[in-house]
Order: sequence, then C-alpha cells, then structure tokens
Amino acid sequence: MDAPDPDAQQPAPPRRRGRPPRPVLSPGKITAAALAVVARAGYEGFTMAALARELKTAPSALYNHVESKDEVLNWVQDDVCETIDTSGFGVDPWDLAITRWAHSYRAAFAPHLPLIPIIAVFPVAGAPHTLAMYERVAEGLRGGGWPLDMVVDVVVAVESFVLGSAMDVSAPEGIFDVGERRELAPTFADAVAARPGRGAAAADAAFGVGLNALVAGLRGTLAAVLAMRT
Amino acid sequence: MDAPDPDAQQPAPPRRRGRPPRPVLSPGKITAAALAVVARAGYEGFTMAALARELKTAPSALYNHVESKDEVLNWVQDDVCETIDTSGFGVDPWDLAITRWAHSYRAAFAPHLPLIPIIAVFPVAGAPHTLAMYERVAEGLRGGGWPLDMVVDVVVAVESFVLGSAMDVSAPEGIFDVGERRELAPTFADAVAARPGRGAAAADAAFGVGLNALVAGLRGTLAAVLAMRT
Repeated sequence: MDAPDPDAQQPAPPRRRGRPPRPVLSPGKITAAALAVVARAGYEGFTMAALARELKTAPSALYNHVESKDEVLNWVQDDVCETIDTSGFGVDPWDLAITRWAHSYRAAFAPHLPLIPIIAVFPVAGAPHTLAMYERVAEGLRGGGWPLDMVVDVVVAVESFVLGSAMDVSAPEGIFDVGERRELAPTFADAVAARPGRGAAAADAAFGVGLNALVAGLRGTLAAVLAMRT
Repeated sequence: MDAPDPDAQQPAPPRRRGRPPRPVLSPGKITAAALAVVARAGYEGFTMAALARELKTAPSALYNHVESKDEVLNWVQDDVCETIDTSGFGVDPWDLAITRWAHSYRAAFAPHLPLIPIIAVFPVAGAPHTLAMYERVAEGLRGGGWPLDMVVDVVVAVESFVLGSAMDVSAPEGIFDVGERRELAPTFADAVAARPGRGAAAADAAFGVGLNALVAGLRGTLAAVLAMRT
C-alpha cells in the first residue's frame, strides 16, 4: 500500500458541535508526534493510545487518519530517510558518494535509538522517499562499476555499519569504564584511558576509522571482482 | 557493583507455610527468563512484573534476588557475551581473530533483536565475562601491532558493524520488495531481484562482503598508521 505524502493535508474530520476546534491531523503531524513519543517513552511507550494523547485527540479520531501502528512506522521511516543525503551518487565517484551517504544516514538515525532495530527490519514498500534513496544509491553503485547482483549486499553491509554506529552515538560517556574490577581487563582499561576523544568525539572517531576501512576494503573488493569477472 | 556469577545458586528465600515449594531463583534462571520474556513480548514487554510472572513468582520475591531491571540487563549482557568466541586472539593473526570474533558475536546477538540497542549502549562495568572478552580482544589487537590509543576505536567500529548485521538477520524476506511503485526504484528493484541469496543466506552474504572489506580496510589502516608513526 502506498504511503500518502506526509506533508499532504488530509480532509478534516467532521467536528461535533460543542467541542473546541482541534488542529487537523495530517501524516506529517502524526509522524512528528510519533517521534516525540518514542524520544520520551522509548519504543515500549509507543502505543496508538500514547500517540493519540500526544496529538491531544481520541484514539478513534487517530484511526480516522492512520490504519495501524505499522502505517505510522512506515511514515516515520520515510520521514527519517527523506533527510538522508544521496546527492553524491551519480556525481562523485561511488566511494565518495557512499561516504557522504553514510555520514548523513548515521546523523538521521542517531537521535532515534529505540527505533533503530524497528526500522532496520521494516519493509521499504510504500515509503516513497526511502525507495528514492535506494534508487539513487543503486544507480550510483551501478555507475561505479558494481555488478548488479552485488549492489544490495554492499548497501546492506554499509547500512549495517551505519545503524550500529548510530546506536553508538547514544552510548554513555563511561560505557567502557571497567569499574572496580580493573584486574579483569587491565589492557582494555589502558586502551580506554588512551582513547583520545570522549563522548560524541569518541563515537565520531570510531565511525571514521570504520567507515574509512569499510569503503577502502570495498574498493579492493570491487577491483578483485571486476578482475575475476572480465 | 560486581555481578554475581549467573550460574551460582543463591540461598533460597524463606518459604511461607502452606505455599507449595517453588524452584529457587538464581541469576542464571532470572537471565534465561528475561531472554524468554523479551523474545515473546519485545523490549516493551520486558518489565519486572512480566519477569516475575515468567518465573512464576511474586515481584517482591524477585526483588529479593535482583536489585533492578538494570541489574537483570547487566546479567543478560554478560550471559550473551560469555558465548562469544575470542579464542583466536593471541593465537591467530589479529585480522583472522577479529573475523572469527565478529562471526560469533553476530550469532550471539542475532536472536535478541529487541535487546541490541539496549546492550549496545549498556555499561560494561560489573559484567565479568564481557570484560574478559574485551581484554582478550584488546590484547590481541595490541599484539598485532595496533597502537594503544586506536584499540577502542577499532573495537567499536567492528562492534557497530556486527550489531547492525545482527539486526539484519531478523529482516523479513521481502524487506526490499518495492511493492506497487516499481517506477520509484527500477534499478534498485532489479538489484533486489538479482541478489543470489534469500533470507538467512542473503544476510550472511552481506555480512561476509562487509566484514571482509572492513577487516581488509583495517589492515591497510594499520599499515598506514605504523608507517606514519615510526
């Protein structure tokens, strides 16, 4: 089923007499409210009842605008993917384009930690911006010489690294503190202490090391595959 | 605070007269029950009340054995990490050891999708098996020539890829089906159709492509860093 454009206005539901007028619900407003509920209450707090409360409406009124929680998630996925930068594909070499895409992809998902495992396995059908993103990436990889049958594996490999890295952005400052049992992990404790960055800078550094290695490795893979197949 | 050994038996709570005898709660049993609750009801269903029901006990009895949900999560993290294979570190070259570790790490977390974003940002202090794992990895990377100040970035980069890939294992078969709007993503639809594997085989293929590239890229990074620093 196709998702409506999240920015499109839906016709207002008929208002009952005597009730104060309420702002008209739209997919865009529902999506924003869903992200706010998840940010406040986690995915465990994201129910249609909580979403209705966030929108200051009754669940029955919400169901006039959206069929199910899955439809809301489809809009949320599409809304987040719409902000991801695919502008390098078809313009820059594929490895530069994928590096820019990965940075932007991580930035788009990092604020929505509880949604990451949901969106990671959410079907893309019916999400027009998500499909447009994948199309640009697929075209860019094809244009860069990647065989058609490897394109999705490359996309999934980079996405897996990006979504894992997006989770790491939320890691608390002391996640690797060994606590009172330093004798259990003395070398690791030294390595944690020697890490130059802290907090967001540390997450950025690990992401940079990994993305640089992953993309360099993929360049080698492509060269090997092309040499083998021709 | 140190976690008790999950396999250690705790002293039985005093039983009230007239009640049927119940199996003694232990960290091991509580951990197994927590994984069962999450598998059935998602992280949103994982409450101390649900955990007590799973253990056929009262929440008050559960709190005699564990302080908080965070303590349960600390045990769960440690229980899952205990199964991860670090045997290559210090024996095989670091790149082989990290490849084996990554395969085993993904296999350990793949069955627990809802816990992945929780464990990804969960402090490691007080989890002895988790700390032992990081110690072996850190020692292996040091022994392989990695500078101390880069060890944690390498660990986090590989973990990010592994945890993202562990999520992909749960992706439904048709996740990339473009649905009725093929015109939005024709190249991507062709690439999806050309993907050789389906389901678990597709996830394995993408993981293999990515891990191979990431590790090859890290070999290049290490060579460059060592050339620069010496």
